[in-house]
Amino acid sequence: MIEVHAFATPNSVKVLIALEEMRLPYELKPVNVRKGEQKSEAFLALNPNGKVPVLIDDGFVLAESAAILVHLAEKTGKLLPKDGITHARVFEQLFFHASGLSPAFGNAGFFKRSSPEPQPIAESRFKTEGERLLGLLDTKLASQSFVAGEEFTIADIAHFGWIGRIAFPGLTLDGRPNLSRWFETVAARPAVQQAIARVETIVPAA
Amino acid sequence: MIEVHAFATPNSVKVLIALEEMRLPYELKPVNVRKGEQKSEAFLALNPNGKVPVLIDDGFVLAESAAILVHLAEKTGKLLPKDGITHARVFEQLFFHASGLSPAFGNAGFFKRSSPEPQPIAESRFKTEGERLLGLLDTKLASQSFVAGEEFTIADIAHFGWIGRIAFPGLTLDGRPNLSRWFETVAARPAVQQAIARVETIVPAA
Repeated sequence: MIEVHAFATPNSVKVLIALEEMRLPYELKPVNVRKGEQKSEAFLALNPNGKVPVLIDDGFVLAESAAILVHLAEKTGKLLPKDGITHARVFEQLFFHASGLSPAFGNAGFFKRSSPEPQPIAESRFKTEGERLLGLLDTKLASQSFVAGEEFTIADIAHFGWIGRIAFPGLTLDGRPNLSRWFETVAARPAVQQAIARVETIVPAA
Repeated sequence: MIEVHAFATPNSVKVLIALEEMRLPYELKPVNVRKGEQKSEAFLALNPNGKVPVLIDDGFVLAESAAILVHLAEKTGKLLPKDGITHARVFEQLFFHASGLSPAFGNAGFFKRSSPEPQPIAESRFKTEGERLLGLLDTKLASQSFVAGEEFTIADIAHFGWIGRIAFPGLTLDGRPNLSRWFETVAARPAVQQAIARVETIVPAA
């Protein structure tokens, strides 16, 4: 039995997409981050880092969305090719996402929207870095179908989670034809649409 | 034949430690980031992201230090246990490091040392986050020997790379007894000392 403790966030949706792609049944447990529920005692007992998503797989509790993607891929044998080169490229992209794109997008969005006072150098630093990283992905996708090669993998799921929220850091796919093509291809996958629809059901109406 | 294109940086030393721990022979190719050599045309042909380290393993070029750690662990069967739980915990820690500790430390250091003008909210944000994450590791290491369990793994190598540079973001291990014990244990490993000594040989005298 798989439980996912999550909300409609860039990192949460990655796990739901993987579960839908792998056709694994799961129970979705809402953690309303707008109300700060990820800092509740009950949630911190699952993940002391206070972040969604958390996966519970037959009692085994795992945090970090990309670690969850790797766990599910290894469990099912899906979306993480065993071939040496593509396999290594998946990890290269997962860590490029985790250490590069994800903090750039998150921090650009924070300084654009939530900083108590303007921090123009910080805002510019992360927005510029986000643009630079989008440019690298666009160039890569000029010569290959997916981010780790010719196959759709968990690395595409990771990037999709944040690129699907590209407005948050104030960025755009305009002028990125290869990345736009990739985004539309991924967004059109039935499992991706199913995951997005499902995670949106747990967001209370305003 | 393995080549490592690297410099004396937190991410570079991780790869050297892994190679020394795994007793893999390698050639160290200096990329002097103080002179901006990571932005040279020759280096960008290896890694368009313009970051060290890069590994070349029999012609296969791989970037992202943590992806390199995974590649080397899978190639040698060392420092990444196959056991399901510890295996997943290694990835949980690798991604906690890549998406959490590493950008917090890097950005705290940037805003403390390199920002063209003070950005106090940004400086405080990343330093506070770095402290919070050190606290989480200290708590974890109260009940286990290494970050992913009872064995030394590539996840310890990842954390050691940045925690070995804890002065850069203006942080300290003071008041973190478990993390301090872990740090001393890892620092005392002969392979770790050998890697640090070797990477320092490529830093030109000032």
